[in-house]
Amino acid sequence: MEHGRVPANLFVIFGAGGDLTQRKLLPALFRLAGQGVLGERYAVLAVARDASRDDVGFRALARSALAANGAATDATTAWCDRCLYYQPLAGPGPDAYRALGARIEAIERTLGLPGNRTFYLALPPSAFPETIARLGETGLNRAPGWVRLVVEKPFGRDLASARELNALVHRSFAESQVYRIDHYLGKETVQNLLVFRFANTVFESLWNRDRVENVQITVAEELGVGRRAGYYESAGALRDMVQNHLTQLLTLLAMEVPQSMDADSIRYEKAKVLRSISPLLREDLVLGQYTAGALRGQTVAGYREEPGMAPGSATETYVAVRVEIDSWRWQGVPFYLRTGKRMPRQLTQIAVTFRRPPVCLFQAFDACQIHPNRLFLTLQPDEGFALYFDVKKPGESMELETLPLHFHYKEAFGVLDDAYQTLLYDILVGDQTLFVHAEEAEGSWRLFDLPAARRPTLSMYAAGSWGPAQADALLAQRGHHWDVTTAP
Amino acid sequence: MEHGRVPANLFVIFGAGGDLTQRKLLPALFRLAGQGVLGERYAVLAVARDASRDDVGFRALARSALAANGAATDATTAWCDRCLYYQPLAGPGPDAYRALGARIEAIERTLGLPGNRTFYLALPPSAFPETIARLGETGLNRAPGWVRLVVEKPFGRDLASARELNALVHRSFAESQVYRIDHYLGKETVQNLLVFRFANTVFESLWNRDRVENVQITVAEELGVGRRAGYYESAGALRDMVQNHLTQLLTLLAMEVPQSMDADSIRYEKAKVLRSISPLLREDLVLGQYTAGALRGQTVAGYREEPGMAPGSATETYVAVRVEIDSWRWQGVPFYLRTGKRMPRQLTQIAVTFRRPPVCLFQAFDACQIHPNRLFLTLQPDEGFALYFDVKKPGESMELETLPLHFHYKEAFGVLDDAYQTLLYDILVGDQTLFVHAEEAEGSWRLFDLPAARRPTLSMYAAGSWGPAQADALLAQRGHHWDVTTAP
Repeated sequence: MEHGRVPANLFVIFGAGGDLTQRKLLPALFRLAGQGVLGERYAVLAVARDASRDDVGFRALARSALAANGAATDATTAWCDRCLYYQPLAGPGPDAYRALGARIEAIERTLGLPGNRTFYLALPPSAFPETIARLGETGLNRAPGWVRLVVEKPFGRDLASARELNALVHRSFAESQVYRIDHYLGKETVQNLLVFRFANTVFESLWNRDRVENVQITVAEELGVGRRAGYYESAGALRDMVQNHLTQLLTLLAMEVPQSMDADSIRYEKAKVLRSISPLLREDLVLGQYTAGALRGQTVAGYREEPGMAPGSATETYVAVRVEIDSWRWQGVPFYLRTGKRMPRQLTQIAVTFRRPPVCLFQAFDACQIHPNRLFLTLQPDEGFALYFDVKKPGESMELETLPLHFHYKEAFGVLDDAYQTLLYDILVGDQTLFVHAEEAEGSWRLFDLPAARRPTLSMYAAGSWGPAQADALLAQRGHHWDVTTAP
Repeated sequence: MEHGRVPANLFVIFGAGGDLTQRKLLPALFRLAGQGVLGERYAVLAVARDASRDDVGFRALARSALAANGAATDATTAWCDRCLYYQPLAGPGPDAYRALGARIEAIERTLGLPGNRTFYLALPPSAFPETIARLGETGLNRAPGWVRLVVEKPFGRDLASARELNALVHRSFAESQVYRIDHYLGKETVQNLLVFRFANTVFESLWNRDRVENVQITVAEELGVGRRAGYYESAGALRDMVQNHLTQLLTLLAMEVPQSMDADSIRYEKAKVLRSISPLLREDLVLGQYTAGALRGQTVAGYREEPGMAPGSATETYVAVRVEIDSWRWQGVPFYLRTGKRMPRQLTQIAVTFRRPPVCLFQAFDACQIHPNRLFLTLQPDEGFALYFDVKKPGESMELETLPLHFHYKEAFGVLDDAYQTLLYDILVGDQTLFVHAEEAEGSWRLFDLPAARRPTLSMYAAGSWGPAQADALLAQRGHHWDVTTAP
């Protein structure tokens, strides 16, 4: 993660016409270029099926995408004309990839690039295997310089397919060349979890079973399934959110102190967390689906009423899960993960509830109740920290009031960079820390790829609520309850 | 500390014409009355030498004192007329006290009071022994109800005189009747130290030698000696501030968890801290005196140039001291106390510096430096907490920035009550928690009553500085440095 210039390189994007390229990748590359970190000698080669498009046509498309993202027109035009190229992929066969290889070499020759290449697969998952196989078959896994392969999520749809995909990837690429994207890892607030834990003795001292009562991770979306019915119906919240994003947050929170901050050390510790998690039982899990309800004063449809949806769909739009980590550090401390669509508000938040004082010294006083200390790390929106602690309410009586020590990123730093900007930079300087290792991908699937017998029946919840009653019951078994900060 | 009505009582103030009565005691009683906690049946009997004054004259004096304190005129007039009485004390002999006793009984009879009496000695310390002796001799230490004796600071001027005074007090009063004032203990923020520590596992977990590198207590005054030359010249900062206020803060910070929050338990633990402190060596102490300098752009005189001062005065206006507590909890953790006049700004602040991480994981990164976590408890002004911790500075590089989680009383609670209001209420409900026990008073003197051989020579510092260089050197010996938050 050392800050520095990126070596001269060619950045190849498969799926160049897609949403991700237009909304995230091109804007991120443009901003990195604007910050001067990309240097002078680089190019972006966009690859897609559309044979009717050419360099000029793609540059026009990119310009409007950047404009929609708020970039200034003069600067974008110059950048697009100088840096962007387009290559249509004529069919799935090896010939199309040989043509691509020739085009790559031609551009590198023209621009004097040394043959450092990134292949970014901004593709639907169904297209991963073929593309990866072809890159290997046609020798594009080797180059005069380095070759890096970036694979977007979801990485597999169960343990078997993830293993298969890893095997396919490793036939042509070493693990050190592979960058599995989980864009949550690019968020400043997620990266900061490592600093928060390992640069601050105050917090790391508290980070264990002696001090912590439970840990909660909430990833709540206001949106429903929207236009993604087709994809979502075959995925569900467990695959779409829990197996990747929530599990990544879990491992960063629970990992041991790594030997150093390099990618191998950190990813080893994260994978170790996954290996330490007890297999999930049916009673550790709540699956939910939203029914019609009200959200911010608007009536919204239930999941089964969404356009294009099967009326009897059994896909979960909500998951709550209790995870137990069998390690010296965490044994006995439940980690509760939940995510859902059509929640009351958008929120990604970690809540750590600390143990109560062993003796309540203030119980003799009227109106005096001790509240457990709680730490909230808000990853979005209004990124920041809040440590709730009890203070004496001023006045003659001994009453306690819970108040936060707080910190907001916005106040200290203004607007944060987009996650993709961080991730693309790291790919280009060859830092794998914020990418998912093969073992992590499989370890996470091993946890959440549940046989039918271990999947609970679906619980319904009204859109606009915080999920089904069963999810509250899951915590109540241990005397816990879901906890988020109030909306700002 | 239970909130409730005060039983019917008579509050007798010796030294009723003095500054403390006018500026603090009467306003505090008036505000308590306004809050309704004093009930309907009570009276205040002001006692002083001035024989030319009577009830009416004293009420007029009190009215103007309350008006100067910002109280509304109508309400003060009614209160003064209804509640205040004056009794001149005709000489030092027992007769004057017998007359006082008769007056007390007359008022109690008239108002139907049950004979609960407080004797508040708002007197110069030289008048304590005689007053206490006479109260005993004339039987005023007994009454139909309870009798409480309140003694203002300073309690003795060395160990011998404090012991003598305690012996004298205990000849006529049980320790449970005695309220030794240290007004610092009445401050909300000081009381909150107990809640902060014992209602919050997060902080109490960190409160030991494994986590804490050093603890600092700074009580800085902007003022010089002013018109108090006579008193101050014979006292000095060690007697005036360190032996009482700073030592009280020290014991509250360092004490073990008490068995309960009652006065006996808490004061036992505080006294235990004092017993655990190693005797001070000459090299643990820095004594300073201010020379002429500049403060907030104004040239100010040196201590020896102040009006009424001896030119060669050796009185210290600054003390820095390193205290070591030989307990399982604190062994090896220095507690640094400092106080001074003519400091750059008025500030009472506790700074706890936590240990650095055992391994700096971020050292490989450019511009990456780990700072120790620090907790600041500001007792005045701008009362509040700030916990400084490191966060990742947003951006591609790994740079750490130290930022505070913070909390300000003002934002949460508005203006805080005056310390005397709290203390008078506690006296009236019979809660000794916030008063100094006989053993504490002697224990503190045992520590700071230094023979000449253990007093270091005086170090000079310019008015407007943070004290002499020797005080910095005192901390530098262990790699520490004085730390306060920047002015708001």
